Amino acid sequence: MRIAVLGTGMVGQAVGGKLAELGHQVRMGSRGADNPGALEWAAAVGNGASVGTFADAAEFGEIVVNATGGAVAMDVLRAAGARTLAGKVLLDIANPLDFGGDAVSLSVVNTDSLGEQVQREFPEARVVKGLNTLNASVMVEPGRVPGEHNLFVCGNEAEAKKIVVELLVSFGWAAESIIDLGDITAARGTEMLLPLWLRLMGTFGHADFNFQVQRAR
Amino acid sequence: MRIAVLGTGMVGQAVGGKLAELGHQVRMGSRGADNPGALEWAAAVGNGASVGTFADAAEFGEIVVNATGGAVAMDVLRAAGARTLAGKVLLDIANPLDFGGDAVSLSVVNTDSLGEQVQREFPEARVVKGLNTLNASVMVEPGRVPGEHNLFVCGNEAEAKKIVVELLVSFGWAAESIIDLGDITAARGTEMLLPLWLRLMGTFGHADFNFQVQRAR
Repeated sequence: MRIAVLGTGMVGQAVGGKLAELGHQVRMGSRGADNPGALEWAAAVGNGASVGTFADAAEFGEIVVNATGGAVAMDVLRAAGARTLAGKVLLDIANPLDFGGDAVSLSVVNTDSLGEQVQREFPEARVVKGLNTLNASVMVEPGRVPGEHNLFVCGNEAEAKKIVVELLVSFGWAAESIIDLGDITAARGTEMLLPLWLRLMGTFGHADFNFQVQRAR
Repeated sequence: MRIAVLGTGMVGQAVGGKLAELGHQVRMGSRGADNPGALEWAAAVGNGASVGTFADAAEFGEIVVNATGGAVAMDVLRAAGARTLAGKVLLDIANPLDFGGDAVSLSVVNTDSLGEQVQREFPEARVVKGLNTLNASVMVEPGRVPGEHNLFVCGNEAEAKKIVVELLVSFGWAAESIIDLGDITAARGTEMLLPLWLRLMGTFGHADFNFQVQRAR
């Protein structure tokens, strides 16, 4: 499958690399087509991995992964283009983290979420929020964390979530570990998990952890 | 030990009942000393459980449990009185849930929390935020949820957290399942877990679940 990964940071590199390893054609999008980090990534990954602008990558991909930092996510998706995103599954991994204050906070929160903002501004994109509640290295290698643990997905379209779940299963996640929270408004809950996640990272001194929802059946 | 439980709802009844069952002298506080729910609770619990106003109960307790709804928490603690709360461990279970909008939201969030508000307004109380990330029935009977799962505590004073942890262990929680997140600002993270918790309750159709943080050691 042809997949666009928007963003050249740790999340983009990890997810893009895994997708290429699994045999997908991956194009990493960045502001300029000559982004050194993206070029280095593509050379290291091989397997036909390529680079381009946000618009190039989004045009190329049948699926688009938003792996940008939350502060720039909307601008990046505008650069990708509403017409280009229309009809495509858009996996939104970004969290609207604001590092400007005394403590990290969320720039959208509580009565709205970045996931909802993306779906509202790009109504024809098939937005699925997912993978935003854990570290990049665990996203693509769930076995880094012992035991069973969960992923959360949400979005307005069942078929789009099914496509994302299949990708996540190909990453090594058990299908039954992926909890479908319903429509995109559930992105409020998963984005609001970040302050606790950040605190736990500080407490443990590493990011190789994830949440498991234990429950009576 | 003499323990005050402020609030007559499900959380107050469950925690107060468990404390009485464990042999503590428990006084449930409510706005009026003749609250029918509190009187019924005391009669059902026996073991010397008593009722009183918020001020009566807080005066009686060596430890004070804030089991009110978040919307009234500050008013209730003001009724209990700053001088009465001074020097006492105050276990704050309340979440600042706002049921007024289209969806449940938090009335304090992101750059502040109810736990911090309580500690700021009652600087001499030894505030510990805890038990606010799970259902009342699971608080006092962790075995309702299978497997290992966690509690989170935070607060500015180590000795106060130690006293709370000992109480929680007496409820049946394993000491190693209780994660100390540090100072009271971590209440932001645990209170912000509520939107995801509520969504999971809707997804599962019940509240017998809890979070386990799986981690590499």
